[in-house]
Amino acid sequence: MSAPQAFPAWMKAVQADAESALDRFLPAGSQAPARLHEAMRYTVLGGGKRVRPLLVHASGALFGADADALARAASAVEMIHVYSLVHDDMPCMDDDALRRGKPTVHVAYDEATALLVGDALQAQAFEVLAGTTTVPAARTVTMLRLLAEAAGSKGMCGGQAIDLDSVGISLTLEQLERMHQLKTGAMLRVSVLLGALAGRDLASHEQEALGAYSRAIGLAFQVVDDILDATADSATLGKTAGKDAADNKPTYVSILGLEPSKALAEQLRQQAHDALAPFGEQALRLREIADLIVQRKA
Amino acid sequence: MSAPQAFPAWMKAVQADAESALDRFLPAGSQAPARLHEAMRYTVLGGGKRVRPLLVHASGALFGADADALARAASAVEMIHVYSLVHDDMPCMDDDALRRGKPTVHVAYDEATALLVGDALQAQAFEVLAGTTTVPAARTVTMLRLLAEAAGSKGMCGGQAIDLDSVGISLTLEQLERMHQLKTGAMLRVSVLLGALAGRDLASHEQEALGAYSRAIGLAFQVVDDILDATADSATLGKTAGKDAADNKPTYVSILGLEPSKALAEQLRQQAHDALAPFGEQALRLREIADLIVQRKA
Repeated sequence: MSAPQAFPAWMKAVQADAESALDRFLPAGSQAPARLHEAMRYTVLGGGKRVRPLLVHASGALFGADADALARAASAVEMIHVYSLVHDDMPCMDDDALRRGKPTVHVAYDEATALLVGDALQAQAFEVLAGTTTVPAARTVTMLRLLAEAAGSKGMCGGQAIDLDSVGISLTLEQLERMHQLKTGAMLRVSVLLGALAGRDLASHEQEALGAYSRAIGLAFQVVDDILDATADSATLGKTAGKDAADNKPTYVSILGLEPSKALAEQLRQQAHDALAPFGEQALRLREIADLIVQRKA
Repeated sequence: MSAPQAFPAWMKAVQADAESALDRFLPAGSQAPARLHEAMRYTVLGGGKRVRPLLVHASGALFGADADALARAASAVEMIHVYSLVHDDMPCMDDDALRRGKPTVHVAYDEATALLVGDALQAQAFEVLAGTTTVPAARTVTMLRLLAEAAGSKGMCGGQAIDLDSVGISLTLEQLERMHQLKTGAMLRVSVLLGALAGRDLASHEQEALGAYSRAIGLAFQVVDDILDATADSATLGKTAGKDAADNKPTYVSILGLEPSKALAEQLRQQAHDALAPFGEQALRLREIADLIVQRKA
């Protein structure tokens, strides 16, 4: 057997694959209504770390998923993620003008278009996933249900609602954790699950192991976001730095301090590795993504 | 055989059934995040004509669908419809303060909550439909795909985008028709289809007949909306009357005039009846809904 591809090359290949799948699964910019479709493509294509597609592909490789099912699952989770960013950036939410180094949709277009772009991207995500033909239908229904749960009021939207309600309030570490497990964690977790289910049904101990991994990287992701928001500059981040402190939002750095937050991130990285132990060498890519999440600079 | 139930009694029973299903399929108001869940329940429950659930049930009865599949399909289309109203009423869209006789969500709560309520309701619609267990999985996947298509940029959201772009512009009758076939028609059509598919697979001639019926009632619905907006008062409508003229939006009444619009509505009602001919007496409820759509006063 040849040595496995190095992580940066694998990551680049998956990111290119995700970009091409998103391009294929989004309506053409020339198709009516053209302005809406252009705006959807403007915000989805040409950027982003594609962490969720990376998780789908890493997990899919571990469970033998085929290329089309992975392309659809990866596009679906990324479309949900991007729609949430578009709505989150609107004036009535975070009022952010810069995202991934580009003007946000309500700035580049207008608020009404940003609202519709987000709404249409959410529907598109379910349309793309429901177009899966290489997975038994019963499992496709499960995947659609899991995606809806992760995106909705008991997942991502619920986390955003708690986030809104917590501005200017001092949260306990547990409350902060719960918010982020919904706001970011639910979609990271479903990315791992959809990749796996694109391959085959999961035994309950496999679900639990993937769940433990997902919880660890979900929290790590947010701890590192808070560290970067407190320490990096806007140019590096591709979005406005220091927003959380300016908005008086509770963060890991504001509750724990900077150095303990860094230690926590490292501890969570180790927990993610430990959770993958049952899968042995095959889980290499999932381990590397945990490392990436903790060691990233933006 | 006993005489069929009169339409008003049937309608009342279905509306009560839809209300109880929505209540069951929405998260409890006490469940965290409580404010979001309360706002979702505030806007969905206790009102509305429930035209889309009526279509689901009428079509489902024709194709032998079971009660749980109908309750899920009816709740899903109504949740999509209500989310679109919540977003449509926001200040960056139509900026409307009154809906179904109650303050709109961004007025009763706030804009950020209205945004999240809409987003979460869309996800909830897919979650509820994906929870269908009494229909073969392959058909459930088809139903989910059709719902996503009807809700997205080539359906409802696309129609809203064209609507936005047409403010202050004079549309031809064909352009106005196309906008409404997307904005309102797509969700009415999918309501009819989901009800039928909850029962069994459809032959292509059955799909075509239901499609022709849906196109006719979709347009009739909008023509009558325009007539009511021009002639009724806000108290009767439960929303702000005369908005379209004030907003300089093209309507059937502004393009055709009032009396020709009324004649068109009657013609479309007849077309809807004709499309149902192949189904004979069994399609009674669908015919009665066409009558309801044209003869309603609000």
